[in-house]
Amino acid sequence: MTSYLPPLRDMWFVLDSVLQLPRAWAQMPHFADLDADTARQVLEEAGRFTRDILAPTNAPGDLEGCRYHDGKVSTPAGYREAWRAYVESGWPALACDPEVGGQGLPNSLNATLLEMTAAANHAWSMYAGLLHGAYACLHAYGSEELKARYLPQLVSGEWASTMCLTEPQAGSDLGLMRTRAEPLEDGSYAITGNKIFISGGEQDLTDNIVHLVLARLPDAPAGTRGISLFLVPKILPEDLGGQANTLYCDGIEHKMGIKGSATCSMRFEAAKGWIVGEPHRGLQAMFVMMNSARLQVGLQGLGHAGASYERALRYAAERVQSRAPVRAQPEQAADPILAHPAVRRSLLNQRCVVEGGRVLAYWTAHLIDQAEQHPDDASRSQAEGLLALLTPIVKSYLTEAGFQLSSDALQIFGGYGYIHEYAVEQTLRDSRIALIYEGTNEIQAIDLLVRKVVGDGGQRLQSLLQIMRDDCSAPGVNPRFAEALRQQIDNLHQITTHILERAASDAEYPYRVADDYLRLVAVVLIAHAWLRTDRVAAAGEGEAGDFLAAKRSAAEHCFRYLLPECSLYHARIRAAEEPLAEIPVDL
Amino acid sequence: MTSYLPPLRDMWFVLDSVLQLPRAWAQMPHFADLDADTARQVLEEAGRFTRDILAPTNAPGDLEGCRYHDGKVSTPAGYREAWRAYVESGWPALACDPEVGGQGLPNSLNATLLEMTAAANHAWSMYAGLLHGAYACLHAYGSEELKARYLPQLVSGEWASTMCLTEPQAGSDLGLMRTRAEPLEDGSYAITGNKIFISGGEQDLTDNIVHLVLARLPDAPAGTRGISLFLVPKILPEDLGGQANTLYCDGIEHKMGIKGSATCSMRFEAAKGWIVGEPHRGLQAMFVMMNSARLQVGLQGLGHAGASYERALRYAAERVQSRAPVRAQPEQAADPILAHPAVRRSLLNQRCVVEGGRVLAYWTAHLIDQAEQHPDDASRSQAEGLLALLTPIVKSYLTEAGFQLSSDALQIFGGYGYIHEYAVEQTLRDSRIALIYEGTNEIQAIDLLVRKVVGDGGQRLQSLLQIMRDDCSAPGVNPRFAEALRQQIDNLHQITTHILERAASDAEYPYRVADDYLRLVAVVLIAHAWLRTDRVAAAGEGEAGDFLAAKRSAAEHCFRYLLPECSLYHARIRAAEEPLAEIPVDL
Repeated sequence: MTSYLPPLRDMWFVLDSVLQLPRAWAQMPHFADLDADTARQVLEEAGRFTRDILAPTNAPGDLEGCRYHDGKVSTPAGYREAWRAYVESGWPALACDPEVGGQGLPNSLNATLLEMTAAANHAWSMYAGLLHGAYACLHAYGSEELKARYLPQLVSGEWASTMCLTEPQAGSDLGLMRTRAEPLEDGSYAITGNKIFISGGEQDLTDNIVHLVLARLPDAPAGTRGISLFLVPKILPEDLGGQANTLYCDGIEHKMGIKGSATCSMRFEAAKGWIVGEPHRGLQAMFVMMNSARLQVGLQGLGHAGASYERALRYAAERVQSRAPVRAQPEQAADPILAHPAVRRSLLNQRCVVEGGRVLAYWTAHLIDQAEQHPDDASRSQAEGLLALLTPIVKSYLTEAGFQLSSDALQIFGGYGYIHEYAVEQTLRDSRIALIYEGTNEIQAIDLLVRKVVGDGGQRLQSLLQIMRDDCSAPGVNPRFAEALRQQIDNLHQITTHILERAASDAEYPYRVADDYLRLVAVVLIAHAWLRTDRVAAAGEGEAGDFLAAKRSAAEHCFRYLLPECSLYHARIRAAEEPLAEIPVDL
Repeated sequence: MTSYLPPLRDMWFVLDSVLQLPRAWAQMPHFADLDADTARQVLEEAGRFTRDILAPTNAPGDLEGCRYHDGKVSTPAGYREAWRAYVESGWPALACDPEVGGQGLPNSLNATLLEMTAAANHAWSMYAGLLHGAYACLHAYGSEELKARYLPQLVSGEWASTMCLTEPQAGSDLGLMRTRAEPLEDGSYAITGNKIFISGGEQDLTDNIVHLVLARLPDAPAGTRGISLFLVPKILPEDLGGQANTLYCDGIEHKMGIKGSATCSMRFEAAKGWIVGEPHRGLQAMFVMMNSARLQVGLQGLGHAGASYERALRYAAERVQSRAPVRAQPEQAADPILAHPAVRRSLLNQRCVVEGGRVLAYWTAHLIDQAEQHPDDASRSQAEGLLALLTPIVKSYLTEAGFQLSSDALQIFGGYGYIHEYAVEQTLRDSRIALIYEGTNEIQAIDLLVRKVVGDGGQRLQSLLQIMRDDCSAPGVNPRFAEALRQQIDNLHQITTHILERAASDAEYPYRVADDYLRLVAVVLIAHAWLRTDRVAAAGEGEAGDFLAAKRSAAEHCFRYLLPECSLYHARIRAAEEPLAEIPVDL
């Protein structure tokens, strides 16, 4: 029961039939060499790696956890071997620039790898997952010397990396950060300060760890405009002596989940580092990785949701308990619990969220490719606008789905769900962190509504709504779905206009409604994903008849049960016109 | 941060001012000696026990867990001392019959103890919590000899008890149970079979454990009508040799939470036991404890929700991070996160659920007292009907609240919420089991809609609606609240009529909508609780002005933000008129 079966069939259906990505890749010179067969082989191979090599380390790694002793961290048994296999197959380099050793494949394909590694072993994937962010930062802002020294080893996975942001008093608010950077005569800096919650701050998978550290220069202004970014290696380069830098891991956290991921307290004592990008513009250098990092966390949520759903579905088909109101096995004393309406409805709901969410997430990944590689300026810029809008939604909605669906799946297992053996309780625990890190979901909601929607007067949102409206008019769509979705698009347009108007006189209003607004847009997007899926299924494209028929009934379920959530979010957004009550702390 | 501060002030306000229980007790001869001052002293004393003695064992007990070795179980450090203190203060006997050593206090007062013990240490409270069920079963159905032998030690807490129901193939469906009972010549029985998930099946807190075991007699009909109940002690009585019975603990489960509670696999090998009640009517004997056991689980959920809310509130007032859109500390670089709208809205929502849920839960506990002790036949019978209706709602709604609010509280702690030190992640893990055991929440929903509402043609529901309608017309209620609640009562009446009509031709329909129906009734009941609370607060009863003013704004929040959920449940109940889609297992 602890195994992970990657949903390769659905993944390929989404990439190839729903999103028609091979056709889109052909239009971008960067991906022109990639044909559908190659892409599919990469997908299958990633499936084998996650299923056969990575997934078996998940449950034991959770029980064993990381161990800390005297500044050193040991990862659980099997982690090193999985890391070696990962590096040897070239997975870290999948979507990296070929000029520094990458394979230059699309982010949409990399998204399937990220979904599967998180689903197979979220804790382990934390060591791998930070590579891409560090790569992107350095690639965009590093000096030529730093790039030459560090990029090849990061792209190959020979060395790993961290992002050192959080301090005890500075979590969501990086402006409160205190770590200092003193310039040295040789052009490097001495970094001093304490960082907490550093994933992979110390580990035994790689010989060197490249820390990207946010710190303040002596002349830095207060707040977020006085933060610079530094590269601080665990081991100094050979030509500088090759000795250990003066940075230390003081301990690891005892966490609810991802226990195989070492969450470290790091102490920098005049550790030697080099600046990345301009002084005081460290946050800007980090923003370059923000979209892909947030998408990655959303894909973790999708991975949790998908793995839990698949386990619960298999279990529900096998577990026989009580008679269903409409009997599935009239000759037996009891029916599979899949025949019980409460179980079936829960699984149908899970399916709608997982498979609709997959369309949304892979589409978002594809927008990164379009924004970076599309030959046409207008297309790149439109993709960038949509990406800015969809990224916080994918991060929040899919991480909430990962947690909620793991809980729903656990419920289907009953008492067995609560014990470690059946894997789903671990997924529930692991999934919970994704609602917090890489910007809490509340911060994502503010990013969406305040920065992205109110920020540009609703322009980007209008172009998203137009895309959805166009899809409602595409030949072959289910007219009932199109009508229902059009109605919700109109409602969304209206409530957005209302928020924009009201924000002018009540600046707090968007902050009060941001969470509901994000969920509202997310549900409309999920319905849009199912409208597209249903259209492809109705046309008989890409898959067997029973597969497509089941897609069509799932689309029905989505429009019947999920879409009504919109009215709740509208009601709450209207309710929030009044200011919030005070809440006394003295109980 | 790991401490537990029992919400004694709100508890007493609910008992005394909102529900006016001292007045109700005075009308029942059984409680006539109990005055408000005594009740309040009992409450304060229970608060001291849970805060000072029990709560400190919670976090360490979670880390240590139970250990199993060679058939024996060791509970975590401090559990034995807490048990001794609990027994010495007479807490197990609080609501038990004075004739067998109990204190004869009301269930509504016992409810506060149950909420607090679960909140302070859920795992530990599992050992104590089963006593009352076993007591109730034996008290109602045990032979005089069994009662004399076992009741006094159970009531005093000298011995503990278990309920042995589940078998690997028989969880929610007890009809599939296989454990056998062979009659012996001396009138006792030899019990043989395997039971799983037995809380406290083995432990080191008490010298003897009284197992109540469901098993089949040789001539038993198949299914649930062939199940009998047996008392099977771990240690046989002195006059029968006083040796260990032939029953064994083969291991304990590795669980998501309540790690200090030993969840045992038990093996009975012709173990000696005595029948409780009539042959083949074991489930009936167990039903006697069903209402109080389900209420107790609901109170666990309330305890989790309340403890998490209180921790998050304290943290939000202290943690300073980022500038709020409306500044609370304009002279500082950042504001307490309580000033951030997303955090404040979440806490207000938590408050509405916790304090409204407390009114609902204590009212339900009071209905047990009324059903058992009211001098008037009609009042007893009305209380019984309401109790049947409210019990599954309290169990489901409050356990979901316990889990959801722990997660909401965790979110407010950000990254700190995910580590053990801040207690809330443990509460989240502990709380999750309560949605499953004592009848899964889906089974509660079927119990409510199919058995209790459809089962009597909606009679009991009508009397509940009438009570709520009457309260809407009480002098001094907020007319806006009354109007909104009346509207929801009418809607509930209509949808119930619709379900009753449709069930006649589509027997599966109530099963498809049961979960939404339960949540719908629950939200209406929570709004009803706040209407009552607001009325008391408006009259200036029982508490200080700022306390009452905050109650009134919380009531506003409930009607503004929680009540709109009703429309979502209505929409889904309508949507379920169509049969559910098939869901293929092959992915």
